[in-house]
Amino acid sequence: MAEEILTAETRLVGKEAARLDAVAKVRGQARYADDLSFPGMLFVKAIRADRPHARIITLDLSWAERHPRVVCVVTPEDIPGENVVPVIYRDMPLLAVGVVRYVGEPLALIGAETPEAAEEAAALAQVTYEDLPAVLDPLEAIREGAPQVAVPEAAEAGNIFTHMVIRKGDAERGFAEADVIVEGEYRTGYQEHAYLEPQGVIAVPEEGGMAIYGTLQCPFYVQNAVAAVLGLPLSKVRVVPTATGGGFGGKEDVPSQLAAMAAVVAAKSGRPAKLVYDRAEDIISTSKRHPGVIRYRTGTKRDGTLVAVEIEFYYNAGAYQTLSSAVLWRALVHAPGPYRIPHVKVDAYSVATNTVPCGAFRGFGSPQVIFAHESQMDELAGRLGMDPLELRRKNALREGDETATGQVLTESVGLPQAIERAAELCGWKGLRREVDEFNRQKKFRRRGVGISTVMYGVGMGAKAPLLDKAGAYLKLEADGSVTVAVGNTEMGQGATTVLAQIAAETLGVKLSDVQLAPVDTSRVPDSGPTVASRTTTVAGAAVLDAARKLRARVEAAARGFFGVDEVEISDSQVWPSGEPGKAVPLSEVAHWMWVHNWDLGATGWAEGAPVDWDPDTGLGKAYFVYAYACHIAEVEVDLLTGEVHVRRFWAVHDSGRIVNPALARGQVAGGIAQGIGYALMEELKSEGGRIVAPSFTAYHIPTSMDVPAEFVIEFVEAPYSGGPYGAKGLGEVPLMAAHAAVANAVSQATGGRLREYPALPERVLELVEGA
Amino acid sequence: MAEEILTAETRLVGKEAARLDAVAKVRGQARYADDLSFPGMLFVKAIRADRPHARIITLDLSWAERHPRVVCVVTPEDIPGENVVPVIYRDMPLLAVGVVRYVGEPLALIGAETPEAAEEAAALAQVTYEDLPAVLDPLEAIREGAPQVAVPEAAEAGNIFTHMVIRKGDAERGFAEADVIVEGEYRTGYQEHAYLEPQGVIAVPEEGGMAIYGTLQCPFYVQNAVAAVLGLPLSKVRVVPTATGGGFGGKEDVPSQLAAMAAVVAAKSGRPAKLVYDRAEDIISTSKRHPGVIRYRTGTKRDGTLVAVEIEFYYNAGAYQTLSSAVLWRALVHAPGPYRIPHVKVDAYSVATNTVPCGAFRGFGSPQVIFAHESQMDELAGRLGMDPLELRRKNALREGDETATGQVLTESVGLPQAIERAAELCGWKGLRREVDEFNRQKKFRRRGVGISTVMYGVGMGAKAPLLDKAGAYLKLEADGSVTVAVGNTEMGQGATTVLAQIAAETLGVKLSDVQLAPVDTSRVPDSGPTVASRTTTVAGAAVLDAARKLRARVEAAARGFFGVDEVEISDSQVWPSGEPGKAVPLSEVAHWMWVHNWDLGATGWAEGAPVDWDPDTGLGKAYFVYAYACHIAEVEVDLLTGEVHVRRFWAVHDSGRIVNPALARGQVAGGIAQGIGYALMEELKSEGGRIVAPSFTAYHIPTSMDVPAEFVIEFVEAPYSGGPYGAKGLGEVPLMAAHAAVANAVSQATGGRLREYPALPERVLELVEGA
Repeated sequence: MAEEILTAETRLVGKEAARLDAVAKVRGQARYADDLSFPGMLFVKAIRADRPHARIITLDLSWAERHPRVVCVVTPEDIPGENVVPVIYRDMPLLAVGVVRYVGEPLALIGAETPEAAEEAAALAQVTYEDLPAVLDPLEAIREGAPQVAVPEAAEAGNIFTHMVIRKGDAERGFAEADVIVEGEYRTGYQEHAYLEPQGVIAVPEEGGMAIYGTLQCPFYVQNAVAAVLGLPLSKVRVVPTATGGGFGGKEDVPSQLAAMAAVVAAKSGRPAKLVYDRAEDIISTSKRHPGVIRYRTGTKRDGTLVAVEIEFYYNAGAYQTLSSAVLWRALVHAPGPYRIPHVKVDAYSVATNTVPCGAFRGFGSPQVIFAHESQMDELAGRLGMDPLELRRKNALREGDETATGQVLTESVGLPQAIERAAELCGWKGLRREVDEFNRQKKFRRRGVGISTVMYGVGMGAKAPLLDKAGAYLKLEADGSVTVAVGNTEMGQGATTVLAQIAAETLGVKLSDVQLAPVDTSRVPDSGPTVASRTTTVAGAAVLDAARKLRARVEAAARGFFGVDEVEISDSQVWPSGEPGKAVPLSEVAHWMWVHNWDLGATGWAEGAPVDWDPDTGLGKAYFVYAYACHIAEVEVDLLTGEVHVRRFWAVHDSGRIVNPALARGQVAGGIAQGIGYALMEELKSEGGRIVAPSFTAYHIPTSMDVPAEFVIEFVEAPYSGGPYGAKGLGEVPLMAAHAAVANAVSQATGGRLREYPALPERVLELVEGA
Repeated sequence: MAEEILTAETRLVGKEAARLDAVAKVRGQARYADDLSFPGMLFVKAIRADRPHARIITLDLSWAERHPRVVCVVTPEDIPGENVVPVIYRDMPLLAVGVVRYVGEPLALIGAETPEAAEEAAALAQVTYEDLPAVLDPLEAIREGAPQVAVPEAAEAGNIFTHMVIRKGDAERGFAEADVIVEGEYRTGYQEHAYLEPQGVIAVPEEGGMAIYGTLQCPFYVQNAVAAVLGLPLSKVRVVPTATGGGFGGKEDVPSQLAAMAAVVAAKSGRPAKLVYDRAEDIISTSKRHPGVIRYRTGTKRDGTLVAVEIEFYYNAGAYQTLSSAVLWRALVHAPGPYRIPHVKVDAYSVATNTVPCGAFRGFGSPQVIFAHESQMDELAGRLGMDPLELRRKNALREGDETATGQVLTESVGLPQAIERAAELCGWKGLRREVDEFNRQKKFRRRGVGISTVMYGVGMGAKAPLLDKAGAYLKLEADGSVTVAVGNTEMGQGATTVLAQIAAETLGVKLSDVQLAPVDTSRVPDSGPTVASRTTTVAGAAVLDAARKLRARVEAAARGFFGVDEVEISDSQVWPSGEPGKAVPLSEVAHWMWVHNWDLGATGWAEGAPVDWDPDTGLGKAYFVYAYACHIAEVEVDLLTGEVHVRRFWAVHDSGRIVNPALARGQVAGGIAQGIGYALMEELKSEGGRIVAPSFTAYHIPTSMDVPAEFVIEFVEAPYSGGPYGAKGLGEVPLMAAHAAVANAVSQATGGRLREYPALPERVLELVEGA
């Protein structure tokens, strides 16, 4: 961005504005996937494996086919294109052939006239198996002689899907120079996305092709997947995200699988086909956050200066690659944390097991390593007798510093200010004294204060810069109102409103005149996925680009309209420069342009700034910019029950310019809640490769009783020169910082050291006992 | 267009290609308006006036409201915006207030949970009226002291909505110089569009606005009308034409009325609202072809050279203006026919009566005057003792000639060639002899041969050049396939296929890789209506514009890809110029562009070439280009029953370059059938302002038994420099020429002179008796 746009006085950007989708959602007018129906529509049900690893001996669908309301049965032979769910690799079949690799893997599909008939028919399928030895734990999977889980072509060696490294400086020398060294192993389990709306899609045969409606984050991924299974050119597949009740990464790659399943049924039957999961099917069969085993060793000088870190971690990827290699790469880059560390050695592994494939989840592999690095910081502070905030302040990255991957931070780094502001807001020293005082007074209750500092790479990074692009289409109507089309989705995060604000600001129109068109892959070029906290930054830049072109055209017309050399446009008014008394509504100029047959449409395009990466050393410019945050949590622990309550929370973020503070606060508050859930309560139990009790009765997510009554949320707005109006990216960051602050607070309160998520009461009691 | 594109060797343009929508339509997968449903959808029924002219005394909806399945009742007070159906004027209310002006005028609306409940509730409405004197005939309506029908602000004087003139040369002097003068009065009645699919729309509340789905020709008209009644900015109204089962002009302005009605019910109830007419409601309440009373006087020299024409005609517009002023203008311009005439005087009137408003119908006012001018030509030929073909050949316009409005024809004029080719195809002189021979031999059967020549202005013309524009959006996919978006609709005429051919030709891709996106007003700028035979010419030019931009980008990329200075692209292959052996699939280059983050979207824009018009003299450049045709019909008349059968038909058209000959022949064949219906059988009876027997049992359209077993159809392709690949426009033209050739054939066979359409058996018997 030019300097002037970073410092410009803005009318709308940086101001609160009500969500554009609020009224429709409150009124129940928003149409979610399951709200849609089409004439002749079939209901799809997958027949799924109930073994973690087995050879399929027979698959008999003759009884299912005879069900009077079954219209079509689909087996791998019916797939007109390729039998694959293409993600990064092509190892995952749409329907298993020969071997099943996890419980829940789809074998065949039923298309029936009612959901009940589909369900009944699926139950009539007769499958016989020959069991194969199953491997469920990643550390067992990499042992010599372990049964082979991974499709060999998709794995680097045995069951190791991917091994990635960072080699910076000389870790051995670093540790030799260190005065204090801490080490520890950290473990995290599954986290379930728990989006309000389960997965669901409808495939509708259209003239010469297929349309897909559904709840999804990445319409262009789905387009690609459906084209692959149908053997169609991309132009014949059109993907239209419906109103989406939450994604959190869970609707990144999984909808491709659902859409491909619905599409093959629709293609075979020639009828629309709907596939909507109930909660149990959703939990059993869709991706989750990778469980991790993470080993850290960190060394500092006596004064707290970090000198070395050595990290080794293993993520359980499940049976197929899906997004695991990309998840692993983000974890690799983020593992050392937001600190200056001269010597860094990281070894990251994603490992195949006979479990449901893991995938994207807000943070994309980062929370696991952040739990570890922030725990290490607190352990170091304890060993050094330093204030943990002071230790972070001392080592926090600043503009001009070099990251653990050797990237020099040329863009603004608001982390130091975030730390200072968070300390100020909570009254850090006073708060710590207050907690100490409480703890002295209470026998069975303990409070603790935890801090975390994080950095977070915005966008796809150097692992997939080819996805860090976005297109936009803007259209001025004859009455001065504006239509905006983008290829990125609204899933509750507020993208629609923020992009409309950018368009309105740049064009000089009222926000109420701007309308976002429904997203549809046929409207704009592939704009990458709606992930990686990139939508405001990249799609926003595309909108800005289109808006500038359109504004230049409007200004040219207005110069003609007024017969002057310069005009100004603001708040849907246009006037000759310096003569605001001559202002006319923009609608007049727009109508004049319409009458004179001006082209009122414009396209915009944006791509992320260049990045680079050397996979052999793990060094390079990993991301074009980073966001930063400092969170502080105060918890209270019941020493008798082990229950933890988060009392107060302070969150300060640098996400560059904040386009809509109200929505941004909402993102932060949601991230804190999700972080509290991850650290304290979310546990998905699996036995013998089967997820047991797949419901929210057993899997607890935070309710309003589990979050503090109030969050203090503030923004340090250090602008990014490449983002629209200086925006960096925010979406995932709050969750990154929140769980670690809570975890550190629990450790501080109990006097123990939390090394495994979640901090369920029984685990907290162990900490108390061990302290 | 540059010269090279007019003469270029083409791969796809000019070649037959199957309709892209054929398979979906044959398989029943195409979704028409009534096929769609939305959750919570209401069904709308209008309460309509049953008086032609009356004051509304009371409107009691309390019984209707109490119907248990009625959700909402809408009266004029419930309209959130303006109570209007905006067309050219704003005289027509959406719901009548105070006075009703025609039988069928909507008074109020019911929104109910089932169509039956809506129907029942509408019948429960209690309306009392005070009758006002009604005027049903245009000639009565213009008499001094006639009751006032027209809303005064919308009329020029009394019930004359519009009076337009042409004054060229000096008609009085012209007639003084004429050797032979003929005159006559011609009358035509209603013609009903008889589209397969009746009118239907669904209004669906969306985030902050309203979406409209429906069977319609002019999405941007509907957008405008819905925005007006809802009081919304245009950007908040999105119109998506569904598969449309025929339009013929009947879905030009009428869908605005339906959409506005559905939209106000949807807005009040907050629920989707569907309004679909059955055939009777459709015939009673929607627009038709204007009935006309047309007086001609034409003078020639002894050698057949036309010297003067004087024309006065009155069109029955019905109760409101709708499109009548534009219809009248086209009739005005076309009234003198495709002939060189030095002295022209035309007075055209559209007149308000208490009848259903007339509107657009294929030809837009032209067929009525063409019936007259082609009858006059035959009468003149008879008086002159000249072959009627020879008379037309002598006077037909040629390139460089001046039209009746003083426009010099600088573009190609294929009319003389069309006449010659038609004569050749039918063996004109032999055919006439053969018919004479037959007539000598038969006692109760007579054959006749009729000829007609027409010109037809393509596009909106100088009456509304601001509507002669179109936008397009093209997108190259990463696999080399192409998406095309336009703002013009497919209603059966083949636009989709023709526009795809233009895109594929220009880009150098296979037709099978091109997909048209569903039309949606939010995809491209206002592209004007899908009328006036303009879609291939104007929307095609916009597609061409976008395709050229996109091709230039692909070529630039391919130069980089190959590292050469010049490349060639054809049939989805790319190679360095002169080295076809190095060709790679376009998909490779497209994927390379995708990986390197090239912007793969492009917009296109086109507007009609400049036109001008002086309303005082009726002189000017009326249209940017004209299409031409010569039709020849052979009929056989049963002298005992008056029945007429069209035995053979020859049609030769100059519509510039023909993009898809198969589809073009289909347009011509359909136009001939519709012309046979208009001339011979289509009669809609009206009594006391009420259309009686509104069904196809009473209103007869031609069946396969009524058309010749074979049409001979050919094209004279005289290119238009402003059309894509030289295309001029075709859609309406065949109907223009067909009915007049049939009428002349009937006159010739009977020896009488047909002066009123349709030539029903009873009228034919009168001709026979009068001869």
